[in-house]
Amino acid sequence: MAGGTVAIVAGAGRLPLLVAAALEAAGRPFRILAIRGFADPATRRRAHATVDLLDVRGALARLDAWAPSGVTLAGAVARPSPAALLNTLAVLRNRDELRSLAQGGDDHLLRGVLALLEEHGHRILGVHELAPDLMAKPGPLGAGRPDAAAETSVATGRALLASLSAHDVGQAAVVANRRVLAIEGPEGTDRMLARARSLARRPFGLGRPPTGLVLVKLAKSGQDLRVDLPAIGPRTVRAAAAAGCSGIAVGAGDTLILDRAETAALADRLGLFLLGLEASA
Amino acid sequence: MAGGTVAIVAGAGRLPLLVAAALEAAGRPFRILAIRGFADPATRRRAHATVDLLDVRGALARLDAWAPSGVTLAGAVARPSPAALLNTLAVLRNRDELRSLAQGGDDHLLRGVLALLEEHGHRILGVHELAPDLMAKPGPLGAGRPDAAAETSVATGRALLASLSAHDVGQAAVVANRRVLAIEGPEGTDRMLARARSLARRPFGLGRPPTGLVLVKLAKSGQDLRVDLPAIGPRTVRAAAAAGCSGIAVGAGDTLILDRAETAALADRLGLFLLGLEASA
Repeated sequence: MAGGTVAIVAGAGRLPLLVAAALEAAGRPFRILAIRGFADPATRRRAHATVDLLDVRGALARLDAWAPSGVTLAGAVARPSPAALLNTLAVLRNRDELRSLAQGGDDHLLRGVLALLEEHGHRILGVHELAPDLMAKPGPLGAGRPDAAAETSVATGRALLASLSAHDVGQAAVVANRRVLAIEGPEGTDRMLARARSLARRPFGLGRPPTGLVLVKLAKSGQDLRVDLPAIGPRTVRAAAAAGCSGIAVGAGDTLILDRAETAALADRLGLFLLGLEASA
Repeated sequence: MAGGTVAIVAGAGRLPLLVAAALEAAGRPFRILAIRGFADPATRRRAHATVDLLDVRGALARLDAWAPSGVTLAGAVARPSPAALLNTLAVLRNRDELRSLAQGGDDHLLRGVLALLEEHGHRILGVHELAPDLMAKPGPLGAGRPDAAAETSVATGRALLASLSAHDVGQAAVVANRRVLAIEGPEGTDRMLARARSLARRPFGLGRPPTGLVLVKLAKSGQDLRVDLPAIGPRTVRAAAAAGCSGIAVGAGDTLILDRAETAALADRLGLFLLGLEASA
């Protein structure tokens, strides 16, 4: 990773400061642009500037003034109301183009934001590039290990998600052995897990409730990790456990583990394995 | 279609008598084996015999005595409790094999029932073979026509379902333009439509609620239509309309249209198009 100042556009949660700490450890300078109403108090205390989410002009002016060697987007930002976002972005972009973006999947939308920053000459860097130690590593992340049924589920889930990779949907699935219980759509991982929970309790197939349930979560091939980084954390572990999953398998290197120690400890306590999958396996 | 008596194993709904009428029109003899508690009164009045769903021995004995040239399974049968089904089938089949079947998708289960009948020397015929006029034809089925957005949705849905075809999941999806809102799992089409309805009302992407929503429903490649025939009917049209769909596209030749006249009239009244898709298009 070349040097130069990194601008961290900071949303909610601990991630912005974790990225800052990783940059500090690497001796790389950074500036934090906190998003008002989203960035945590701890982040705002260390921020070099603060902007409103919808103040796109202000954010761009600040970034242009800093002239960073790279910009990274870190931390959650709840989507503003569609109308508000459309109006503010329409100042800068063609409305028809925006509508076209809005008709595609999340990827299309994020690519639009990315294009806007890049048009202003900014280079977008991913958290996975700046702070690789925050990403899942290959192999078990906690004490648990998948049993034979869970291994079948993992293989089934990998093959399924690979098939879906071209379609801008389905970054995650819940699988029980060879059976797919749920594929994630725009509703997100937590709501997909709630659905799998209800299906597992009232099994549709023959026999007892399905065994070997695993949440498999992988980046799509070609997914732009700079703006759309798969992530799991304690909340994911809790939701997976509630759905009856025996474990969670994620792509190593392309999945962020939020609160790594807490996530692994919680998985151990709830009896779930956490497994990082190598891309080529 | 060669001649010889057809045994119609009759579950709920009008389908068994529709198949009987098609056979009558073709001058082909048939016998109806009604499933007690499922077959409609009108079906039972014309039945040649009646059995309990769980009386597998009795059903096989009856079919063996009739020695039909083919057996067809027509009409819905709610699944009995898994334990009851496991116990009754275990009389005839290896328990471990049943468990293995239960771990796969619906296809695995249905293939097990099929194997049982075939081991007894019966030839299973599909409703689509015996009564092809009940199936969707290529082209529009009602007065409605897809607009450009809906055509994009149809193409997106076809490509998506083709990708999923190998995975024993996802016989249907709800698509809005290039965006996939929901993929059907074991919950079935109606519950997937309810999910799409809630997603469409609270759009995740930019802009107004998604437009051009279409329910796309296709048999998997290699799907055994003799035991697992995609079907739509008035209930599907009502659920798709409630989800905000502008239409329904189904595979021509491999999708049963229940109550064709009522289905088309309802779609016309609710402003939905119904489109039969050719396999090669």
